[in-house]
Amino acid sequence: FCKLWGKVVQLSLKLKKLGEEDPRRIVHSFKVGLAITLVSLFYYFKPLYDGFGVAAMWAVLTVVVIFEFSVGATLGKGFNRVLATSVAGALGVGTHCIATLSGESREPLLLALFVFIIAAVVTFLRFFPEMKARYDYGLMIFILTFSLVSVSAYRDDEVIDLALTRLNAIMIGTFTTVVICVLIRPVWIGVEFHKLIAGNLEKLGNFLDGFADEYFLVSEKVCNSKDKSFLEGYKSVLTSKSNEETMAHLARWEPGHGRFRLRHPWTQYLKVGNLARQCAYKIETLNSYLRSEIQTPQEDRIKINEPCKIISSECGKAIKKLASTIRKMEKTSDLAEPHIANSKAAAENLKTILKAGPWKDSNPLEIMPAATVASLLLEVISCTEKVVEAV
Amino acid sequence: FCKLWGKVVQLSLKLKKLGEEDPRRIVHSFKVGLAITLVSLFYYFKPLYDGFGVAAMWAVLTVVVIFEFSVGATLGKGFNRVLATSVAGALGVGTHCIATLSGESREPLLLALFVFIIAAVVTFLRFFPEMKARYDYGLMIFILTFSLVSVSAYRDDEVIDLALTRLNAIMIGTFTTVVICVLIRPVWIGVEFHKLIAGNLEKLGNFLDGFADEYFLVSEKVCNSKDKSFLEGYKSVLTSKSNEETMAHLARWEPGHGRFRLRHPWTQYLKVGNLARQCAYKIETLNSYLRSEIQTPQEDRIKINEPCKIISSECGKAIKKLASTIRKMEKTSDLAEPHIANSKAAAENLKTILKAGPWKDSNPLEIMPAATVASLLLEVISCTEKVVEAV
Repeated sequence: FCKLWGKVVQLSLKLKKLGEEDPRRIVHSFKVGLAITLVSLFYYFKPLYDGFGVAAMWAVLTVVVIFEFSVGATLGKGFNRVLATSVAGALGVGTHCIATLSGESREPLLLALFVFIIAAVVTFLRFFPEMKARYDYGLMIFILTFSLVSVSAYRDDEVIDLALTRLNAIMIGTFTTVVICVLIRPVWIGVEFHKLIAGNLEKLGNFLDGFADEYFLVSEKVCNSKDKSFLEGYKSVLTSKSNEETMAHLARWEPGHGRFRLRHPWTQYLKVGNLARQCAYKIETLNSYLRSEIQTPQEDRIKINEPCKIISSECGKAIKKLASTIRKMEKTSDLAEPHIANSKAAAENLKTILKAGPWKDSNPLEIMPAATVASLLLEVISCTEKVVEAV
Repeated sequence: FCKLWGKVVQLSLKLKKLGEEDPRRIVHSFKVGLAITLVSLFYYFKPLYDGFGVAAMWAVLTVVVIFEFSVGATLGKGFNRVLATSVAGALGVGTHCIATLSGESREPLLLALFVFIIAAVVTFLRFFPEMKARYDYGLMIFILTFSLVSVSAYRDDEVIDLALTRLNAIMIGTFTTVVICVLIRPVWIGVEFHKLIAGNLEKLGNFLDGFADEYFLVSEKVCNSKDKSFLEGYKSVLTSKSNEETMAHLARWEPGHGRFRLRHPWTQYLKVGNLARQCAYKIETLNSYLRSEIQTPQEDRIKINEPCKIISSECGKAIKKLASTIRKMEKTSDLAEPHIANSKAAAENLKTILKAGPWKDSNPLEIMPAATVASLLLEVISCTEKVVEAV
């Protein structure tokens, strides 16, 4: 019994943490509860129920299925649902009429054939990448509505009435959902996407800003006490591609809100995201040199210390400026320019030092890691420039 | 009109390509059509229809919603659907009984309250990462069934009958779907996952196997005519993480099939996939040196040509051997060992060359890229070793 109690406590702690991490989750749960309760009013009030009857079920079903966390996802699903139901319903009624004309005995055969063909063709269409991204849900609802309407028409002669009430119920469900989703503390996926991209750039900037200090001190082991989380932050950037793509798709469903117009250039965000990832790959390799087997002795590192530090921290600052530019949605990328210029000057400096051959007397094998770091930092500059251009 | 015709031709060409790329897509479409036609028989045969009535609709609905391309996804959804419907149905009936006891006037209030609470709590549970991964669909169905049963009970007194027929219809739909999905040319997601991991390793192997040849010839520009697709193949490995995770989740739903037992160690595959990605990040950096601004002159490259070529191609061969070991599901990783040993010997050789300081008279700046390549190749060895250990 004690064990069970322990588990319950553990679970509720987890739940609390989940809610504290993002209080909008709690709000979302209440919103869903509210929407479902509202549409179930159809059952409680006799006048409403007389109008819809069993079709009221479809309103509840619609709310449960299309209510998503973000406005974009909800609108996308709602749009898909209403459009697919209307078209498929009309097509289903049409099919029913054709099948009826062919006579009593052949009707079920014809109906079954139509259902088979439509289901197979539409299922195949779902494999289209463009379809899958935006209309996958709609295509599924299309198959569903078409089969239901055309098949149940065989048993129910008031098929047009049936289809219309059902469509009405679905539209009411969608309307309720959208209104509650948008009016009560909406979660705009566009805003989230915007924050994600800016946050990712910031993580890269933090790494670069701190990297050189870390690298040129690592042998002395003095800075162990400092917080090093900034060295790990970039890792989430490496794998955020599919996340970004989903968000871009959903954001396209949203109308203008806040500082975002309709048709905000979301693909541009994807480009910035991809460039940031290119940069993150380089950073991943840089990071591995913090813990590589062969280390360059400190006295050799010191020779390229100065320019490397400047390159790294100026690139980091440039990227952080970009991140804040994105956050504030200003059009100018001028803030980053001086940092880029600084890091380029430092790069020239580094090249001059290297041309002079600072390590003539050292063990060439041990020099290599430092040389690699220097060379990677040079690469990072061009990466950063590309990001600057894209923003 | 001509334009329209052109679009139709274009579309059908696209469709054809889609089918040719993976003929299983066509098979899948037919399977879905067949399943829907089968369950719609409920409507055509009077004796069957009399047993189910309108509830036959739920069988069609279930088939449309749970039939997925792979067996794993279908089983997962089917399991979720049946379990959630049973539990939520029972709970709904219970709620209805409690509400009835409280008297006519307070019944709708109580029902609405229950629905609100359950909907809000279960929606919140869907945010749990563990829940989201495996039971998201089930939780949605839970809310749906609970609301439908408890609310419609208010208007329909034969609520237990209603719930049972509906559950029956859903179980028949699920059964039909699963049987057709498994018996007719099944697509096992486990097999796909297995192939993906092995294929990813192979792509890395191809790159490493060809990289050194490419790098040490790039200035002479002789091999432009050769097919260089192997240099791009690894890029898909960089971003396959979320794909792999989804597949691992779905694969867990599948029973034993072919050479895969139930409880096949899918997490092990994820580990190999992650290590392969670590390796791919290094490769991404290596690849960028094929087109970097500062190039080491050929006469300097030639000095480390021999060992670098060996390291790169032996690592490539080791990884390709691993890929084929995975493909054949053999337990031994012995095949890769000699290649690893070779590349380690070459690495020692490279280190000796570097210690001797081969580039004393060259421009140190121009040497850097080659030195970086050498150093990255050394890193790749340790990466490869880790993959070998994990397989």
